[in-house]
Amino acid sequence: MNTPKEKPWSRLHEMLDRGDAADEIESLLEDLEPADMLHAVFTLTPDDQRALLSTLAPEKAASLVEDLPDTHVAELMEEMRAGDAATIVEEMTSDHRVDVLAELDAANAEAIIAELDEDEATEVRDLINYPPDQAGGLMMTEFAAYPMALSVREVVDDITADTVDYEFLTVHYIYVVVRKKKLKGVIRLRDLVFADPDQPIGRIAKPALTVSPESTLDELEQFFDEHDIAAVPVVDERGSLLGIVRRRALLEALTERAEADNLKAAGIIGGDELRSMPVLVRSKRRLAWLSINIGLNILAASIIAMYEDTLTAVIALAVFLPIVSDMSGCSGNQAVAVSMRELTLGAALPEDVMRVWRKEAIVGMINGIALGALLGIAAWAWKGNPILGLVVGAALAANTIVAVSIGGTVPLILRRLKLDPAVASGPLLTTVTDMCGFFLLLSLASLVLPMLS
Amino acid sequence: MNTPKEKPWSRLHEMLDRGDAADEIESLLEDLEPADMLHAVFTLTPDDQRALLSTLAPEKAASLVEDLPDTHVAELMEEMRAGDAATIVEEMTSDHRVDVLAELDAANAEAIIAELDEDEATEVRDLINYPPDQAGGLMMTEFAAYPMALSVREVVDDITADTVDYEFLTVHYIYVVVRKKKLKGVIRLRDLVFADPDQPIGRIAKPALTVSPESTLDELEQFFDEHDIAAVPVVDERGSLLGIVRRRALLEALTERAEADNLKAAGIIGGDELRSMPVLVRSKRRLAWLSINIGLNILAASIIAMYEDTLTAVIALAVFLPIVSDMSGCSGNQAVAVSMRELTLGAALPEDVMRVWRKEAIVGMINGIALGALLGIAAWAWKGNPILGLVVGAALAANTIVAVSIGGTVPLILRRLKLDPAVASGPLLTTVTDMCGFFLLLSLASLVLPMLS
Repeated sequence: MNTPKEKPWSRLHEMLDRGDAADEIESLLEDLEPADMLHAVFTLTPDDQRALLSTLAPEKAASLVEDLPDTHVAELMEEMRAGDAATIVEEMTSDHRVDVLAELDAANAEAIIAELDEDEATEVRDLINYPPDQAGGLMMTEFAAYPMALSVREVVDDITADTVDYEFLTVHYIYVVVRKKKLKGVIRLRDLVFADPDQPIGRIAKPALTVSPESTLDELEQFFDEHDIAAVPVVDERGSLLGIVRRRALLEALTERAEADNLKAAGIIGGDELRSMPVLVRSKRRLAWLSINIGLNILAASIIAMYEDTLTAVIALAVFLPIVSDMSGCSGNQAVAVSMRELTLGAALPEDVMRVWRKEAIVGMINGIALGALLGIAAWAWKGNPILGLVVGAALAANTIVAVSIGGTVPLILRRLKLDPAVASGPLLTTVTDMCGFFLLLSLASLVLPMLS
Repeated sequence: MNTPKEKPWSRLHEMLDRGDAADEIESLLEDLEPADMLHAVFTLTPDDQRALLSTLAPEKAASLVEDLPDTHVAELMEEMRAGDAATIVEEMTSDHRVDVLAELDAANAEAIIAELDEDEATEVRDLINYPPDQAGGLMMTEFAAYPMALSVREVVDDITADTVDYEFLTVHYIYVVVRKKKLKGVIRLRDLVFADPDQPIGRIAKPALTVSPESTLDELEQFFDEHDIAAVPVVDERGSLLGIVRRRALLEALTERAEADNLKAAGIIGGDELRSMPVLVRSKRRLAWLSINIGLNILAASIIAMYEDTLTAVIALAVFLPIVSDMSGCSGNQAVAVSMRELTLGAALPEDVMRVWRKEAIVGMINGIALGALLGIAAWAWKGNPILGLVVGAALAANTIVAVSIGGTVPLILRRLKLDPAVASGPLLTTVTDMCGFFLLLSLASLVLPMLS
């Protein structure tokens, strides 16, 4: 009866409304490709998404939830009963679980944690205190650690016994500890199985490379660049093994950071936005940033208001004001993007302001002259007045140099001041270049006013 | 003698100039932290970077080069002697090697390939034909494959024999093949070592999950999301094993794509830019995009030129033209960023244009009214004319709806047309919203002109 264009998930909403049995809904979802399933979930309202999570078996819900952005999951869970949320949280891996709970406000998070069993609750409370962009916040606590006196055979027997879920052994390392927690060394699984079975594992362990829980994303990136291992143990200052950070977790965190920077640079701050969120939440978050911007815009435009007489005399100038503003923004944003990338790459350090500025100034000079000439000729051709062309061209040329100088250096300066360059670079750049551009164009015009009108 | 602020790498340039011995330079670099080393390299001119690569031992140069962006390495190698470049290329892993050669122009790449030994040259020529954003372009050809009739003991002996560099076995899979290439199954290394040594490996192999060389980044991302394995074999339509794609290679490709989109959205197209590149290359690439933009800007501003009479009558309007243009750009860019993210995430599909538009229109309405009210009140307060406030506010409100509608839907439409939304969304958005905003403000003002002046 379906029309050919109807999507298989179009019925999901009705099924949830009718309160269809979980297995019917599960079987519908199982028939979907993973991409379609993700898309199906996003087409639901948040309430329906919550209904779906509560309907599914907890392990199914957990695996669905692992594919959604953490902030989105946190928003869904804020409105769920803590008990329902906890049954799902219980099925998630330790690193992912903490990521989601860290996004909840403290009271909601604690309500969910209180529903977990005691060991897990204690662990989560420990982990949640680490910032999400440090090794402590990225680590998982599922790892294989054995006392150094055990024999190779005992360890192999324990691993191959099917009593524990050793799924996590995809990481392929055995950590050797003394006094339960103190890390003495590491053994690759393959070295373990090629070793003499009667040897104590302490004998074949190699010294372990470690990181501290405070290691930053950049430090971890460097570490994994240098060492071709799949996971690194995290130890505290007393040498106790706290967890492991998988290369995979790091790469995912780096991708998320890049995406978050991307969104912030475009003015989506205060959390990811998805169109399945309530309209007022989306509106409010966007407005928070827009209303700062409109203030900055009014400030910049006030420069124009100071030159009303010049404008009245040469109304053609009004045509060029938005062009100068826009083009300087474009040139400046190119420089911002290159600086952001060089910061990520390590090609520029926050203290390289002067080196970057010299490099940008030259590019700004060349491009400013080229763009100024283009716009100047257009202005001359339009009004037949070469002086108008000169004024317009010179203003754009000079402001291009200003724009790339600011665009190139502001991200470094903000990073040095420990501010987030992704958020603040854009508004700062456009406000200053607008003010400067309007001033250059209108003051130059005022100087030669008799020749223009 | 060094001043305390001098960086350890500040001498690198002089050492290269003097032609210091390789080992002195190598020992300087070895003393550096990896991040410092990367930074040291980026502070050199391209010529010095080439001199450095030629001076270092090839395996050192190769490992340095693996930390630099592929496009940058390609640009360095274009100007090196093919023989020098080839000795470095020889030391790189197969997947990385092809990434770099693919960035060179065909003649330069072939000159380097011709210097490789015959087997490697043939392999590179095969691999280089795959697009870099498909499994074929991401795969590496270092993997362990054995005929199915071999016994477990024979395979383990071969692997543990130190005659071959089995570094690549960090991937931990053994592929079982018949007739040299046809993939019959896969064995995890740990299953191999726990198995009866006299069994043929064909007996313990599991059916392998595979991808085709044409699999896209998105398909691979889905694959690795579903399957917790470290690498997937790539097979052609006849079932022959061509290579393996590591999870790590995929994640790196995804990060690179996100970064490239980021740069393109800001107008850095036609290749990554680093400030160590020649000024004219950087200028030219940026200008290519800027000169299209200035054309679009002139087009948009021509709307203003049509209303010179209205502007002359109410010169205050000139103040609001850049504000309407900027603010609409801001609102629209927020919508673009959310759409780009939803496309990446799979939360929006290219065919969701209408759904996205309805969602954006509501947000646009709310934010348009809020911003319009703000600007309207500011205009009223400034000139004491409520009608001016109404005109300005209404124009901004209406144009905000236009901007978010275009911003939200244009990325989906461009993707549907197989165009790159990262490049084209911004210029399209600002041109249309500028034209529309100028038209709304000035035509509204013309309608009520007697009440304004």
